[in-house]
Amino acid sequence: MSNLPARLSELIGKPVHDIDTPALVIDMDALKRNLVRMADFAKKHHVRWRPHAKLHKSTVLAKMQIKAGAAGVCVQKTAEAEVMVAGGIYNVYISNQVIAPAKLARVAALTQAVASHSGGQIAIAVDSREGVNRLAKAMTEARTGARSSAATVIDVFVEIDVGQGRCGVQPGEPAVRLALEIRKHPALRFAGLQAYQGKAQHLRSAIERRMAAANATKAVELTCQLLKAHGIAPGLVTGAGTGSFALEAASGVYGELQAGSFMFMDVDYAQNERDPAQPQFEHALFLKTQVISTHASHAVCDAGHKSHAIDSGMPKVHAFDNLSGLDYFNGGDEHGILRPVDGGSTRLPALGQLLWLIPGHCDPTVNLHDVMIGVSGGLRNGTVDRIIRVDARGAMT
Amino acid sequence: MSNLPARLSELIGKPVHDIDTPALVIDMDALKRNLVRMADFAKKHHVRWRPHAKLHKSTVLAKMQIKAGAAGVCVQKTAEAEVMVAGGIYNVYISNQVIAPAKLARVAALTQAVASHSGGQIAIAVDSREGVNRLAKAMTEARTGARSSAATVIDVFVEIDVGQGRCGVQPGEPAVRLALEIRKHPALRFAGLQAYQGKAQHLRSAIERRMAAANATKAVELTCQLLKAHGIAPGLVTGAGTGSFALEAASGVYGELQAGSFMFMDVDYAQNERDPAQPQFEHALFLKTQVISTHASHAVCDAGHKSHAIDSGMPKVHAFDNLSGLDYFNGGDEHGILRPVDGGSTRLPALGQLLWLIPGHCDPTVNLHDVMIGVSGGLRNGTVDRIIRVDARGAMT
Repeated sequence: MSNLPARLSELIGKPVHDIDTPALVIDMDALKRNLVRMADFAKKHHVRWRPHAKLHKSTVLAKMQIKAGAAGVCVQKTAEAEVMVAGGIYNVYISNQVIAPAKLARVAALTQAVASHSGGQIAIAVDSREGVNRLAKAMTEARTGARSSAATVIDVFVEIDVGQGRCGVQPGEPAVRLALEIRKHPALRFAGLQAYQGKAQHLRSAIERRMAAANATKAVELTCQLLKAHGIAPGLVTGAGTGSFALEAASGVYGELQAGSFMFMDVDYAQNERDPAQPQFEHALFLKTQVISTHASHAVCDAGHKSHAIDSGMPKVHAFDNLSGLDYFNGGDEHGILRPVDGGSTRLPALGQLLWLIPGHCDPTVNLHDVMIGVSGGLRNGTVDRIIRVDARGAMT
Repeated sequence: MSNLPARLSELIGKPVHDIDTPALVIDMDALKRNLVRMADFAKKHHVRWRPHAKLHKSTVLAKMQIKAGAAGVCVQKTAEAEVMVAGGIYNVYISNQVIAPAKLARVAALTQAVASHSGGQIAIAVDSREGVNRLAKAMTEARTGARSSAATVIDVFVEIDVGQGRCGVQPGEPAVRLALEIRKHPALRFAGLQAYQGKAQHLRSAIERRMAAANATKAVELTCQLLKAHGIAPGLVTGAGTGSFALEAASGVYGELQAGSFMFMDVDYAQNERDPAQPQFEHALFLKTQVISTHASHAVCDAGHKSHAIDSGMPKVHAFDNLSGLDYFNGGDEHGILRPVDGGSTRLPALGQLLWLIPGHCDPTVNLHDVMIGVSGGLRNGTVDRIIRVDARGAMT
């Protein structure tokens, strides 16, 4: 809520050791290597890449991604889109349903706001006729109220459910009906299909992910054929996450990848058996923590689930300074409990010992923090490079 | 990070219906009734009450609690204490271990900052000799640097482990040794025992909680006897949470209750079989959400685990507007999935339908939000009363 505390800005140029705990720290060298791997992959496979900013919620990192070759960013929330646009990111896709008229008015205002910028374009997903009509109404009202005479258009993707069982109409006819509905409205442009298979991302075996991605691809193909049969160009097919994007890239139907988590890599994604088609990424996001209490059977650190998300399981203790034999157990909102793996004989860390945790799930972990501290030169001997604001932290409407 | 968006301040005086989703909403009438119940209980049982501000992280609510009779507030983090003091709360107890010298310097600075205020006093917990010595060093350095000649003293509680298995020395001799250590330092005052049985709070049956509290009380009694045998006045015994505080109040050894969650009441605490000794509290904290996608088998709302914490399980759909037959399932960071309870025949909510969720666990839920929206006159027909900042949101160091 407030400005950066002075002690944060004073950190720049200081050794990693000086970072107070708990703190979210980015290994900037690893992050940059991950970015290059993804940019190279997208280039080589001739596929657009519009990473999900729901991961980092940071305009600085969004700009770094765009500089590396990204077409823009995806977000899940209108408020996230507002933060991105205010920060100078003008190609923003809200890959989610927005239904509240007050929010749709904000979406429409964003389409006006980006129109004057080169390449500026807002896009949104829909999965209901009601959603299309409400969006059209908001766009028409915004056009009427706009000072400029430019008739702005929003890109609209029809979301189809390709196996996640959450949002999205069924592939085939229902998608065609929505595309036809979109085409009735001059302020809406049917832009293609949103086809994200969220469940496929976390299937542990590579073959299972291949099966799930193949099913999704089949559903997309059939829907595209049906669109063509109705005389509608299918447009862009967008989707894919860090667990599966090489498969969508090779599918021949997907034209855009939304993968974002590869940049940080969390414990969850690292547990996937690697698909040979996919580049290997490094962990780049860490939670620095410190031991504040020691006991015969365990040690307690100052990072609980108010500093990292546990929806995908506990963080892993980074193998560093001979601390590879420790497991992290939940100690509540503000505490973590460290014990030797499998009750083994690893020596427990001493009072004051610094530790690095690899978050179980990056996206909601980042959302707990006001800033991420970028470090260059590695976690051991590096220095603080920059303080990166999580600009869209808590932007949930 | 930024100031309140204009659309939030404009909400004051508006009907509940106008609150955009997802949003954390306080039923202020229910909250005030909960506060009165607790204040009456503490008065009747002649026990001090210093509620944990880790729940609400709000100086406004802390002041409301103090006005209702609370002695001050507890916090878990130095940064939370700083926010409280900056907001005008001068009796603050950091009921946790602080080990980093840089943080202890901040703690010492706080003791100086509150010294000029009537009743101003900082307290802290310790569970190691090293912790005592580091604290003493920081206090001495702060005294040397202080402009005033007043020799400020910090209240120090020895934390004993009464069954939680997290922080705290063992009851008995180890606690006495630490008390003796504290008494060596003129800037530290041995204030008593921190004896919080965290696990007892969530034991579902009342008899199990009574057993756990009885064990904790026995450990406290024996430690107090031993302290007296060493010629040390045991001071204040502080502890207790919303699940057990009536038992500590009746124990004859606890002098201060730290319970905080009763003010909001979450799904977790509501699952406890009520102990007849304890007042009954109402749910006062809700997450307003909206249906953004509908399907034959389920509906999807706009609240995922970036808007409420799931460490203690899923939120409950508030029985309201005939929506009592719905279960909430996790739909990821930004989505919730609603299905009829037990696959029953409850009609699924329509697109745009507003719903109220009761969070599984209040403390980390509040920590996800910049503000809580206070409503008077009930969730159905009430109006927005005030916007309450979560001042210490993300204050984790």
